[in-house]
Amino acid sequence: MTRPRIEAARLRERLSALARIGADPRGGVSRLALTDADRAGRDLLVRWMRELDLEVRVDDVGNIYGRRPGLDPAAPAVMVGSHIDTVPMGGMFDGALGVVAGLEVVRTLNEEGIRTRCPIEVASFTNEEGSRFEPSMAGSGVIAGVFAREEIASCRARDDGARFEDELRRIGYLGVPEHRPGPLLAYLEFHIEQGPVLEREGLACGVVEGIVGFTWLEVELRGDANHAGTTPMDARRDALVAAARVIRAVRDLMLWLGDGCVSTVGRIRVEPDVINAVPGRAVFSLDLRHRDEDRLAEAVRIARNLVAREAAAEGVEAEVRHIRTTPPVRFAEEVVRALEDALGELGVPYRRMVSGAGHDAQHMARLAPAAMLFVPSRGGKSHCPDEWTDFEHAALGATALLHAVLRLAGAA
Amino acid sequence: MTRPRIEAARLRERLSALARIGADPRGGVSRLALTDADRAGRDLLVRWMRELDLEVRVDDVGNIYGRRPGLDPAAPAVMVGSHIDTVPMGGMFDGALGVVAGLEVVRTLNEEGIRTRCPIEVASFTNEEGSRFEPSMAGSGVIAGVFAREEIASCRARDDGARFEDELRRIGYLGVPEHRPGPLLAYLEFHIEQGPVLEREGLACGVVEGIVGFTWLEVELRGDANHAGTTPMDARRDALVAAARVIRAVRDLMLWLGDGCVSTVGRIRVEPDVINAVPGRAVFSLDLRHRDEDRLAEAVRIARNLVAREAAAEGVEAEVRHIRTTPPVRFAEEVVRALEDALGELGVPYRRMVSGAGHDAQHMARLAPAAMLFVPSRGGKSHCPDEWTDFEHAALGATALLHAVLRLAGAA
Repeated sequence: MTRPRIEAARLRERLSALARIGADPRGGVSRLALTDADRAGRDLLVRWMRELDLEVRVDDVGNIYGRRPGLDPAAPAVMVGSHIDTVPMGGMFDGALGVVAGLEVVRTLNEEGIRTRCPIEVASFTNEEGSRFEPSMAGSGVIAGVFAREEIASCRARDDGARFEDELRRIGYLGVPEHRPGPLLAYLEFHIEQGPVLEREGLACGVVEGIVGFTWLEVELRGDANHAGTTPMDARRDALVAAARVIRAVRDLMLWLGDGCVSTVGRIRVEPDVINAVPGRAVFSLDLRHRDEDRLAEAVRIARNLVAREAAAEGVEAEVRHIRTTPPVRFAEEVVRALEDALGELGVPYRRMVSGAGHDAQHMARLAPAAMLFVPSRGGKSHCPDEWTDFEHAALGATALLHAVLRLAGAA
Repeated sequence: MTRPRIEAARLRERLSALARIGADPRGGVSRLALTDADRAGRDLLVRWMRELDLEVRVDDVGNIYGRRPGLDPAAPAVMVGSHIDTVPMGGMFDGALGVVAGLEVVRTLNEEGIRTRCPIEVASFTNEEGSRFEPSMAGSGVIAGVFAREEIASCRARDDGARFEDELRRIGYLGVPEHRPGPLLAYLEFHIEQGPVLEREGLACGVVEGIVGFTWLEVELRGDANHAGTTPMDARRDALVAAARVIRAVRDLMLWLGDGCVSTVGRIRVEPDVINAVPGRAVFSLDLRHRDEDRLAEAVRIARNLVAREAAAEGVEAEVRHIRTTPPVRFAEEVVRALEDALGELGVPYRRMVSGAGHDAQHMARLAPAAMLFVPSRGGKSHCPDEWTDFEHAALGATALLHAVLRLAGAA
């Protein structure tokens, strides 16, 4: 058997065509879930699937599947998937790369005349981004049993209040539950890293062995709102100074722990929020992530303790509210190894890593042994017009994806 | 000559009557400048003035003066003044106490049959608070030449966009420029402290020898907005972490300087302001105050340096914009001494202090030798329904005010 490759030019061609759909005059791509742009993107995808002789199905949450039959009619499928919806003013790679690479895997197999024992399915999941409808990763979440179908069907658009299922019907992508995936041998998702690690280390690929778990907290600090002029420095209970201590200390703690735990304070509000008043109240979010569930719980415990100590040092009352915890996901070692073996054979330098962001793969891991493959994001950027991945890296990754699929699906 | 005193009960009676005008069902008093409540408060004040045989004048910005003639027709007046407008849900003492105490000074002189060489004027200035119309301290500012009359006349209400002069006419308090004050021997303002110092030190009065100057800055820090999950801690340029360093460090600096300089970060915004993104931008206010102009300038210089250093330590760009500087005001030593002598004679424990808040007195100091007298604010609170001052303290202060007026105006 030859060692087929996927060409950078072909990936670029398809990605560029998709990027024109929902191109935002302000920059980047705005192809939000279940909009007219999403419909147009889906239409193009389905056309491409049909051109490759894939059997197209749409399920009851709008997930699209293109199936290439295998030699063994009873064998479970190997699925390659991602999503084509974007955030507002997003990039042209996030999600789209994984779907397009799946199509190129099929095209290459078709052109090379390679048959596989197992069927191969290319999937595009509905509303991965969650920009227009909460929650994100909705399409994969429903078929994996994470969300109830009715819950997703009835959720409302942030922009115009439209109902999810009504919008799905409107754009012509409300399918049937019978079209959900059958038995799967493996699920593979090819995606941009959305972080700086691969670029920093000069690597073309990252084999993703899991997804971090996260805990979201809301911290409220209550001191005294006072006049900025008449209240001496030593007579204040300044909620923002206490918040500043916490924000700095949590960051330093994460650097000291040095075990890959990350923390972010992304939102903050103070009251009364006027230039000449000492803030009496500060409320901020705290996002903590770790690949290991116990270490995450430990980081949360330490962070809570830190909040209490720093607040007390300022004479300020603290309350920490738990918003949500999503446990980490560990991918299947056999799928991780299939990717590693493919990369090894191709001589592509790579590392194992965990994803700090959520992906459809974390839901699909409930349905099938799963893993992901990352390619570098320039400057670590994503979800913005500047999002970029070298097409040569994309092609190396897609070729490794192809070879991993062949290993798993059993090339004839 | 006897040593007349002002009774706590009389102050309470007048303050309570005023507090019923604009009483806010949510708590406190909402008697914002040039509203119907302000009109009703002014009407009561004018009635009280007439009851005391004062000659009432209203000038072209609505300031109200009640004049008690002196024995020497050519002598300049001693003015006692403050304001009766409030912030929304403000307290019953801020401003009103100073005007009411002026009335009680006159009533006591009338009752005791005491004549003075100089005339005595009780003044109530328009829109000290600035809650409905910017700028604050408008009425005193116009007659002191700080603001142009036309500028104030044409400014618009924050709530309904009404024009200042139209509202003044509507409530019946648009007077004439000829009614502005003539030559003044001294200006005295009796006010609540609005800070915790007197209460903390167990003192009944504070003789105010000046008002702090302040500089308002806006600090902008620019890092990189990144994904909270995929960006390692050591690959971030977190604008909020940098802001937290600055906020903490500026506060610590002020404690270390220990020279009465105060600083406040009252407002803060981050972008993109979402729970799972590293803030790429943080903008916050910085309010710095000091009684000494050079020390204030030095504190501003150090704070700017601190911002640059802390931002650089986080790899974040910093820009500091100057919003406004108001220089400190030093009151007239002879008026300060008149208050001190009065307190000394009465055996009232007091301290000298500077005001951290702005008052009409800072403008009036341009027209006449001026000083202020403070009484304690419970818990340092003001501009809220909880604002409170012990009536015994208020009466002690008002009595000292009376005696200082007698010293300055020359009791016959």
